[in-house]
Amino acid sequence: MNGSEAMVHTLLNNDVSVCFANPGTSEMHFVSALDRVPEMRCVLGLFEGVVTGAADGYYRMARKPAATLLHLGPGFGNGFANLHNAKRARSGIVNIIGQHAHDHIANDAPLTSDIEGVARPVSHWVRTSASSVTAPHDTAQAVQVASSPSGRIASLILPADAAWGDSPAGGVGKLPVRAAPSPSASVVETIARLIRSGQYEPSSIALLLGNRAMRGAAPRLAGQIAARTGCRLLAENKNARTERGLGRVNIPQIPYPINGAIETLKDIRLLILVDARKPVAFFAYPDMPRFLVHDDCHVETLVNEFEDVDAAMADLNDAVGGRPDQIAYVGEGTPPAWSDGTPNSLELGRALAGLLPENAIVVDEAITTGRQLLLSTPSAQPHDWLEITGGSIGYGLPCAVGAAIACPDRKVVAIIGDGSAMYTVQSLWTMAREGLDVTVIICANSKYQILRGELEAMGGPPPATNAERMLNIGSPVLDWVQLAQGQGMRATRVTTMDAFAKALQRGVGEAGPNLIEVML
Amino acid sequence: MNGSEAMVHTLLNNDVSVCFANPGTSEMHFVSALDRVPEMRCVLGLFEGVVTGAADGYYRMARKPAATLLHLGPGFGNGFANLHNAKRARSGIVNIIGQHAHDHIANDAPLTSDIEGVARPVSHWVRTSASSVTAPHDTAQAVQVASSPSGRIASLILPADAAWGDSPAGGVGKLPVRAAPSPSASVVETIARLIRSGQYEPSSIALLLGNRAMRGAAPRLAGQIAARTGCRLLAENKNARTERGLGRVNIPQIPYPINGAIETLKDIRLLILVDARKPVAFFAYPDMPRFLVHDDCHVETLVNEFEDVDAAMADLNDAVGGRPDQIAYVGEGTPPAWSDGTPNSLELGRALAGLLPENAIVVDEAITTGRQLLLSTPSAQPHDWLEITGGSIGYGLPCAVGAAIACPDRKVVAIIGDGSAMYTVQSLWTMAREGLDVTVIICANSKYQILRGELEAMGGPPPATNAERMLNIGSPVLDWVQLAQGQGMRATRVTTMDAFAKALQRGVGEAGPNLIEVML
Repeated sequence: MNGSEAMVHTLLNNDVSVCFANPGTSEMHFVSALDRVPEMRCVLGLFEGVVTGAADGYYRMARKPAATLLHLGPGFGNGFANLHNAKRARSGIVNIIGQHAHDHIANDAPLTSDIEGVARPVSHWVRTSASSVTAPHDTAQAVQVASSPSGRIASLILPADAAWGDSPAGGVGKLPVRAAPSPSASVVETIARLIRSGQYEPSSIALLLGNRAMRGAAPRLAGQIAARTGCRLLAENKNARTERGLGRVNIPQIPYPINGAIETLKDIRLLILVDARKPVAFFAYPDMPRFLVHDDCHVETLVNEFEDVDAAMADLNDAVGGRPDQIAYVGEGTPPAWSDGTPNSLELGRALAGLLPENAIVVDEAITTGRQLLLSTPSAQPHDWLEITGGSIGYGLPCAVGAAIACPDRKVVAIIGDGSAMYTVQSLWTMAREGLDVTVIICANSKYQILRGELEAMGGPPPATNAERMLNIGSPVLDWVQLAQGQGMRATRVTTMDAFAKALQRGVGEAGPNLIEVML
Repeated sequence: MNGSEAMVHTLLNNDVSVCFANPGTSEMHFVSALDRVPEMRCVLGLFEGVVTGAADGYYRMARKPAATLLHLGPGFGNGFANLHNAKRARSGIVNIIGQHAHDHIANDAPLTSDIEGVARPVSHWVRTSASSVTAPHDTAQAVQVASSPSGRIASLILPADAAWGDSPAGGVGKLPVRAAPSPSASVVETIARLIRSGQYEPSSIALLLGNRAMRGAAPRLAGQIAARTGCRLLAENKNARTERGLGRVNIPQIPYPINGAIETLKDIRLLILVDARKPVAFFAYPDMPRFLVHDDCHVETLVNEFEDVDAAMADLNDAVGGRPDQIAYVGEGTPPAWSDGTPNSLELGRALAGLLPENAIVVDEAITTGRQLLLSTPSAQPHDWLEITGGSIGYGLPCAVGAAIACPDRKVVAIIGDGSAMYTVQSLWTMAREGLDVTVIICANSKYQILRGELEAMGGPPPATNAERMLNIGSPVLDWVQLAQGQGMRATRVTTMDAFAKALQRGVGEAGPNLIEVML
């Protein structure tokens, strides 16, 4: 057995069973090994940003890493942006990156580059395998790192000779994964005491939830704590995966625009971080603060990214006397009806709220059009909501690919801006090839609208020739029906809310991939 | 005047007049500055690989750098692969990369990453501007570096406060660019003596030309030297820009497949490098050599990448007594006629040879389909031929964008494999938007054919399920007519050589962008 095959067995032994791939010549021994181990599911992307973004989406839903297979430094480079998003989502991923044979690296063949150099900024762990004997051990360690409670990006560089050389048969067995430790009792006690001290008005206290606190037991415990203490609940601006909808605790997000964020936080004097970070401006502006909380706000960390979130929240709930029959922020009622007419953010959110099937996974990269989608959806059927965590546009379509592979029995609805969708438009082909159960909604405003807003906020004159050419993407108009059909995907275009609702109903009602272009 | 505006003036002062861009919020002050300096031509790409690949193509034809405008680390990451190709082409490029304000970097906002880290592997020069006062000086230096005789990649990271802060009006004036020095007389003399020594059969001597030696005076001088001495002429496997066709010296390339390369070089005992490197295998294979020349081959460098190629060749020509009326390897005759039937590499090359308009620029990323295109085209009208220099697929369409912007009066013909074209498919939109005079030929074989060949060469069984899923891109079939029309570009599909020839004739006869999908 060669090193590649031992690696594939090692991946399977360690519960990595999906490989998102865009291989090249230096990975052919690995590809051949995959052919001999058909238990590994291989999913091709026609561009590496699809591959890494899919691994991100897969982890968010499967809670375990997938592997990626990438072609040397440039292949990794193409996957860099979505690895940045994945790192910010704390998604565990095992990247396997082909490299020249050890004795060929110094010869500086055309594809040679500093792979470790490009991998490091988006990886927690980088290693170049020394040989085909060590490669399976490196693989097992990479999975171990990626599977840690706070998901990590592990990048394993595989020189061709380590791929083709001999290795003990069967690979390496499962390495243990350390569980997240509970936070210290004294931290919980201190925070409970601060909450009950009377020093802070209840409405000036907020629990700020992020990442793992947005799903599982934590949101419900947060709802109990809020009901009991009168404190507020807030969520970080963008989250990897939020469980929300009817009957669930729906936690309002800090808005993206800096003014809205500051306004939301202005009365908070005690902010308790629950797997969240002290809120920071997405971008700096000349005369605005860098941090979003009031200068007099006291910030405490209940639980950090390495600790057990549910345990911490259960302890805090116990300490303040929260009760399962009193829960605040619970989604209820029926979604407000949408009005027919030209689609906009608010109405799209209403239609989505009314039509989302139970247990749907929503991938949201609708940027400006998405700003009001969260308003109506607390009364939608229970669903998961996935967002862009690292700010690097082009995450949405690939993320939907990975989420659909992780959860073949759930409907994925991806709502994506036209500008965003173009970065990784090749995702549509993978959806079609794999027959993924994804409905893609393209919000076609023919603009980089968020940038127009930023330019306007700078207070200068309206965009003239050069700015207009960089912020307007409507000339020529992108035809998303053709872009989808050209990749084997059913597609339709709508210009009114009623037509959108009909198309969405049909899209989520039928199995398999389809796309709706919504003209805004 | 703020730092951004002073930078834009500095770019113009230093003869950088095109900015390929995909900006984000951190670059809005720069975008606003571009609006106030309309002399700068701004070209938007809907993905950063288009932006950096276009800058590469622009340099190859304009012989001067363009600027790129990119959005922090992930934006640079998306541009990484084509910067790798540009670096291998030795194309000078000035990357301007937005960054958070200095006082916001440590706050680790979502888009924060190690930009210098990701920039370094594909840059010769990396700097983060300290302030709005130094930014224009940094810009001038970046252009100076990029404009050096051996084109360099200069990456300038621009923190937002350096973009928005005050700066002296007008920017920095033109910095001098050092000319390439002539190679030493003793080197030329030594090589001339070796050639004439009688120690080597003339047919066992070869001049290996690369990069700048493939255009201008050098190829003709090589033809004179070959005619005079009986030595052979060879070109590196892929070249940034080759002047070839009727009446020009057409130098055969070392083939890409390793067996063909070794066969081509096996009788060479004296190899003289003319802005070329000792030939190295593109990839390592278990039982094959890493270098392609015979063990007994003596290798001498006539001129390296930093020296004056034309001067070195003129000196060598004088030393061996070459004469302008005796030139070997000159393209002559009429292109062989193509036969109707299913298109293939040989016939496509014949049709191209017959139909290329004079002074066309051919961008070749046809990979396996392209292998025989060079056979017939020495008898085509004089043209430039641009190739993938770094092996990172997805260079071709963006390169065509840049070449067309650099040479608005010349027809660009881009012949691209379907697999290759998907990586940077967004280029078609920029072609349509800018009305570029490009005819795109998509060679649609629905496969990663080069990888199938590599897998076959490994000697294993034919691809089974997993390998087939990674090497076959024909399910679903990509429809290039829709992919082009969906981005505002005229397109047609052909299945026979006659139909192809008609479509090509029409395509090159009309101004503006159009696409021909050739079913193979």
